[in-house]
Amino acid sequence: MKRKKNSSEQNKDRLNFIALGGLGEIGKNMYLLEYGDEIIVIDSGMKFPDSELPGIDYIVPDISYLEANKDKLLAIIITHGHEDHIGGLPYILPRLDVPVYGTKLTLGFIKNKFIDDVPFYKPKYCEIEAGDVIEIGAFTIRFIAVAHSIPEGVALSIETPLGRVFHTGDFKLDSTPVDGRVTDFGAFAEEGDKGVLLLCSDSTNAERSGFTPSERVISGTLDQLFRTYKNKRIIVSSFASNIHRIQQVADVASKFNRRIAFLGRSMIKNVELSREMGCLKIDSKLITLIDDISKYSDNSIVIITTGSQGEPFSGLVTMSKGENKLVTVGDHDVVFLLASVIPGNEKMVNNTINRLFAQGCEVVYEKERQIHVSGHASAEELKIIMNLIKPQYFVPIHGEYKHMVRHSQLAQDVGISPKNIFLIGNGDILTFTRNAPPKKQGRVQSGAVIIDGQAAGSIRSEVLKERRDIAEDGVLVVAASVDDRGNLLAPVAIETQGVFISDDSKSVFNELYAAAEYAIQELSGKKLNVEALKRTLKARVRDILRKRNSSFAVVLPVISVKRSGYYDDTSTYEKDFF
Amino acid sequence: MKRKKNSSEQNKDRLNFIALGGLGEIGKNMYLLEYGDEIIVIDSGMKFPDSELPGIDYIVPDISYLEANKDKLLAIIITHGHEDHIGGLPYILPRLDVPVYGTKLTLGFIKNKFIDDVPFYKPKYCEIEAGDVIEIGAFTIRFIAVAHSIPEGVALSIETPLGRVFHTGDFKLDSTPVDGRVTDFGAFAEEGDKGVLLLCSDSTNAERSGFTPSERVISGTLDQLFRTYKNKRIIVSSFASNIHRIQQVADVASKFNRRIAFLGRSMIKNVELSREMGCLKIDSKLITLIDDISKYSDNSIVIITTGSQGEPFSGLVTMSKGENKLVTVGDHDVVFLLASVIPGNEKMVNNTINRLFAQGCEVVYEKERQIHVSGHASAEELKIIMNLIKPQYFVPIHGEYKHMVRHSQLAQDVGISPKNIFLIGNGDILTFTRNAPPKKQGRVQSGAVIIDGQAAGSIRSEVLKERRDIAEDGVLVVAASVDDRGNLLAPVAIETQGVFISDDSKSVFNELYAAAEYAIQELSGKKLNVEALKRTLKARVRDILRKRNSSFAVVLPVISVKRSGYYDDTSTYEKDFF
Repeated sequence: MKRKKNSSEQNKDRLNFIALGGLGEIGKNMYLLEYGDEIIVIDSGMKFPDSELPGIDYIVPDISYLEANKDKLLAIIITHGHEDHIGGLPYILPRLDVPVYGTKLTLGFIKNKFIDDVPFYKPKYCEIEAGDVIEIGAFTIRFIAVAHSIPEGVALSIETPLGRVFHTGDFKLDSTPVDGRVTDFGAFAEEGDKGVLLLCSDSTNAERSGFTPSERVISGTLDQLFRTYKNKRIIVSSFASNIHRIQQVADVASKFNRRIAFLGRSMIKNVELSREMGCLKIDSKLITLIDDISKYSDNSIVIITTGSQGEPFSGLVTMSKGENKLVTVGDHDVVFLLASVIPGNEKMVNNTINRLFAQGCEVVYEKERQIHVSGHASAEELKIIMNLIKPQYFVPIHGEYKHMVRHSQLAQDVGISPKNIFLIGNGDILTFTRNAPPKKQGRVQSGAVIIDGQAAGSIRSEVLKERRDIAEDGVLVVAASVDDRGNLLAPVAIETQGVFISDDSKSVFNELYAAAEYAIQELSGKKLNVEALKRTLKARVRDILRKRNSSFAVVLPVISVKRSGYYDDTSTYEKDFF
Repeated sequence: MKRKKNSSEQNKDRLNFIALGGLGEIGKNMYLLEYGDEIIVIDSGMKFPDSELPGIDYIVPDISYLEANKDKLLAIIITHGHEDHIGGLPYILPRLDVPVYGTKLTLGFIKNKFIDDVPFYKPKYCEIEAGDVIEIGAFTIRFIAVAHSIPEGVALSIETPLGRVFHTGDFKLDSTPVDGRVTDFGAFAEEGDKGVLLLCSDSTNAERSGFTPSERVISGTLDQLFRTYKNKRIIVSSFASNIHRIQQVADVASKFNRRIAFLGRSMIKNVELSREMGCLKIDSKLITLIDDISKYSDNSIVIITTGSQGEPFSGLVTMSKGENKLVTVGDHDVVFLLASVIPGNEKMVNNTINRLFAQGCEVVYEKERQIHVSGHASAEELKIIMNLIKPQYFVPIHGEYKHMVRHSQLAQDVGISPKNIFLIGNGDILTFTRNAPPKKQGRVQSGAVIIDGQAAGSIRSEVLKERRDIAEDGVLVVAASVDDRGNLLAPVAIETQGVFISDDSKSVFNELYAAAEYAIQELSGKKLNVEALKRTLKARVRDILRKRNSSFAVVLPVISVKRSGYYDDTSTYEKDFF
């Protein structure tokens, strides 16, 4: 007979699955498993903001829950080296200070990140490889090879006291991957046979029917393109992390006796790292410095560059603008854009293509030619995985809401009961217990921490709202100096930034000056209330602008107050600061 | 023997083709033909700005050239009623005040526009129909029916003293158009046989191989979808100007015994107008008011709504947010998005789809099902046209640069010599004379006039740059009052809008105050130079922000100067204004 547990022990005998990022969005993946007093985290990604967040560099998950439970956290496990899985680490790891697990190349990408961005912090790296089984607290983790658009990706089969959790990571079932490292079906099946409580699977391509083509098809396309454009200088742009694609370009270049020059910081760094790690095999003799390309005829060189997403300062974009110091493009060039456009980048990519045409280049970018294949499994592959894993419960992860809905429809197609499928959001707690079905109950804090330039802190949402407001119609500043009875010391000054005042702007400004000074005079003579004065100034100025249909600019009053006894002509700060 | 013309007459015997909009862009189409002292304009479109122009409503062509040559301008001829062909008229027509020619429905769209936007101006409308031939000055214009995604489109064959100019307008070669009004091949061929000097043809789909499918395929898709979702309430969203598509939805609705309710201002207006004009045939009994939909069971109603582009206040978007007062959506609803996404709208459409899923709706939007077909001719159709028209010279119009390049490649494929193809830009003057090949020579002023809210004037590009700058990192205002020797009258005041200063903002601000006051003091004691003072303040403050990695905010210095003899405590403006 089983020992009856007391209630506190029972309370500990539960498994929580929580996402801090990655559900209802493509980006900032961060999933956690919590059993009793122990937590492990899977991935720590970032996400690029959309245009609604002007001036923001990137977004990482809100980790308040983990910071509050730091003592429980055992490890962060990384499935692969893409930014939406590792990009949050420079912000997250120093705050949580736990070991980070990953394959050799994945850790290589992370190390480069820390050297550049957070040199003062030294992460504890734990290198694993596909096939390894390690124990971390109550969790026994088997790392399983998967094919993806970056080398050395892994899926995770995690044994917990309440059952096995299978996390696919990002994957596709490429049967002919460029590096020969296929998704390990056998291991998937083995884990499925042992019994899986919960499957968490990549929903990115759940909308796409059929199978995702093998990455290897790119070789065929490249072979054809290199033949077609045999007399042109060839410029290839692709994701800098898609090492398999770079490998294929290099192989075809070698076949056609072309040297390769790399351009763009991330391209050069990733190539260097991957060659060191043995994931990218290019004979050194094939490689030339970008500074030396003038030594080669058009038909004996290939330039591989960043910029496939139209990134403002990338190699391809500066070429398209005629601003690249090392490469000047013209009608002897052909550009192969070997990448899909990430949603949100359409305009930038399109502008780049148009500019390249205007420079006289031929550009190959159409969808008809197979110049890009996705790294994520399509519907048929996802169904195969579900049949192999045969999970009791299913949570679609890594996708927008529409992808998760489609993925849950596929799960139903293969016979998983709708009541065993959980469409949850970031922050939701999905709790598994021994004797009852899992339940979505309660939430932990989740959301976005916004990284703004060097200031790696969270930025207040009001600041973003302010930016949006001034972006729309500009800002009009009304500045006044008053004494502590509110008497004006000098004429009101008005300056604008990004404000458009219609034809008779002079009369509008005259009216604004007059109204501002009148408002100050009205409120003067009694004890100064700076906030009230600002409010009044703002209201009066706004009224005039709107009444005259002149502008919807944000009105920003700035008041400086000369307190009694203020020195008129000198500053005491001088000694302190200069 | 021909009479020898004197040089002034010779100078008049030339034909200029100029675009003021529509080349190198999709949008604001405006083309003009100038012979001697006479000008006709083809189309007057608008364009929506991209995110680089925050706060701008829309863009129309710069018509300075036409304003300067108003006495030469005879007419504006409109090919069809899409916004990128008529949207500029409310701005342009009152300034140029010439007759506007178009088919009945096209003029109907324009009339609605003027009633709403410019009620004080009464255009001179000249209604034509396909088949008409009219003379306007030196130009004899034949209007030719074309199929497009709006009814009553026309191509123009324009006889000029120097030869015939064939302008396709927007078209496709739909052999089974919904209204039976096919593109008039016969007339195209006739004009080609008479001899065409210049062909100007729609480049929108020059990148697409093959033929654009017939609009009629949508009926088949709808039939299938109505069967599949026979128990759900059906909500259809499409372009409000695609009357043919609305017709097909109405026909299928009638077949499946569903009533139709229209939602969205532009949808309701266009349906009304098109039914009046006989372009849309729906039995009144089939139509119900949106307020009455609750009277119908889910399987007996269809809602046709605006919002296919994710427009913020449209019917579909407010439904997706649960904010529509008339329609609450849930798991008994299916939404058919019968539209492609216009570049730039991807995020908005995608967010709408995700929100609809989150409301529990099923959404049909995938590319696999034929839920949208383009209104523009693809590569094979474009080649057919070139073979029919057999032009001496060819100018690809209506497209981004990449489309124009692809279109010119198609022209070469059918045997037009590269030297007879002109890839020109907005403002370029392409001049035809009697005895020499045409030449691109000179430019007229062209560009964008930006319509910003109520202020229908042109906005300076610096203003837009200022907006972009402050949108990125906010604005930091440094305000100071000084006397005319530059002595500070009150402490410096600093205010920010949209600025993010990292953790130790207090110390940053202290440093900024000190630096500003020190700078003012440095420059004081001599005759005040306000501009120099502003420059210095700006530089010092910026240095500190950057040195401390605090912010890249725009620094806006505001100086008010108390001139000698300035009254301290009262304002003389008072009497004038209040």
